Amino acid sequence: MDGRTAVIAISGNSLIKDKYHQTVRDQYIAARETCYHIVNMIRDGWGVAITHGNGPQVGFILRRSELAAHELHEVPLDVCGADTQGAIGYELQQNLYNEFRRYGIDRDAVTLVCQTEVAADDAAFAKPSKPIGSFMDAGQADRRRAEGWDVVEDADRGWRRVVASPQPLRIVELPSIRRLLAAGTVIIAVGGGGIPVVADESGNLHGAAKEALITDPDNLGRALAGQTGTRITRD
Amino acid sequence: MDGRTAVIAISGNSLIKDKYHQTVRDQYIAARETCYHIVNMIRDGWGVAITHGNGPQVGFILRRSELAAHELHEVPLDVCGADTQGAIGYELQQNLYNEFRRYGIDRDAVTLVCQTEVAADDAAFAKPSKPIGSFMDAGQADRRRAEGWDVVEDADRGWRRVVASPQPLRIVELPSIRRLLAAGTVIIAVGGGGIPVVADESGNLHGAAKEALITDPDNLGRALAGQTGTRITRD
Repeated sequence: MDGRTAVIAISGNSLIKDKYHQTVRDQYIAARETCYHIVNMIRDGWGVAITHGNGPQVGFILRRSELAAHELHEVPLDVCGADTQGAIGYELQQNLYNEFRRYGIDRDAVTLVCQTEVAADDAAFAKPSKPIGSFMDAGQADRRRAEGWDVVEDADRGWRRVVASPQPLRIVELPSIRRLLAAGTVIIAVGGGGIPVVADESGNLHGAAKEALITDPDNLGRALAGQTGTRITRD
Repeated sequence: MDGRTAVIAISGNSLIKDKYHQTVRDQYIAARETCYHIVNMIRDGWGVAITHGNGPQVGFILRRSELAAHELHEVPLDVCGADTQGAIGYELQQNLYNEFRRYGIDRDAVTLVCQTEVAADDAAFAKPSKPIGSFMDAGQADRRRAEGWDVVEDADRGWRRVVASPQPLRIVELPSIRRLLAAGTVIIAVGGGGIPVVADESGNLHGAAKEALITDPDNLGRALAGQTGTRITRD
């Protein structure tokens, strides 16, 4: 390690080339191409922390959850985010392992599940604005609103759920991120901006009570870079 | 750290008390109780590596995937495992964070997404025997068999998919596990026995071609303990 560390932010959309290539296998192939470029940076001497978006992937999980709601409990948004950290992280770290082998690079890649603390009184919670999930008709929208969802009408296409998009305050698992980066490990962390959590009055963390999503990997790349003292690059 | 490290294996079933308590919130509360006991061990001076099963949780994801298959791509079994590592890891590490705060313990807890290599020629692949997913009628079973699934008839209850349950050879992310354990970090790792992967002839890793599941957390606890040189305790 010569001290140069890049934070690379991969957008969740970049893993889905078009609507005909959105299966897990398609995403895996897209991840492989991205990892090829990342490993070239590592060969050039960079340490690397990777973060990624998860907008479309959370959308798939939510939609499955909706379609199965007559039979199974639904998946809360914080847990959708945790799911995608596991799945996208797995795809990236397996591809990195294989690229390392190809070039005889003695490095490890691993994904850390990460929570990002946001302020319980972030103004975004009062104005949920980020559309997620599938379109609904007026009847479904009414039912969901009665259950506590915020819903808005999207011109001509029906109704959609909206959630808050609060500002990240800190990455809870930063000590482990720093520790592994210092050891030269390539980490995949803070996927989807981190799972949004808020502290209650006693300081305990919980999934955000009003559901929240932090999906801008650029923002998060900046937060991660700021907190790890590293430089930002972008995929 | 005085060098005593316990590997604690939590079964996936232990997070689901009964059929009336299987929502994510119910699982979170069950995880909290388990974390209370784990933190007592840490207060007694133990270092801790936690692993967990994921049988019922993978079942939920598969079932949602089946119910949504008319509209969305399905979730392969390796990725179901990755999803559960993210979600169950998140629940555990958040509860540990909160318990650490309560007792003023200066420790970090973090989840590592882990792959477990199995032999491509493991005899289990020729005899898939572990039932997963939901019951099917004969027509569904025939369709799924034509798609490549192995299915077996379960006395009087219909047909079920069966997958291989191969022996774990090694945990791919072991260097990062060791590094964080040595620093006193409480790690959650190798959930569901690890995501089963096989090496191809060139040594590259892939999700097991015939789908596989390693769900015995006891076995994996033993594997993890063997590879980290630590002692086993059981939840």
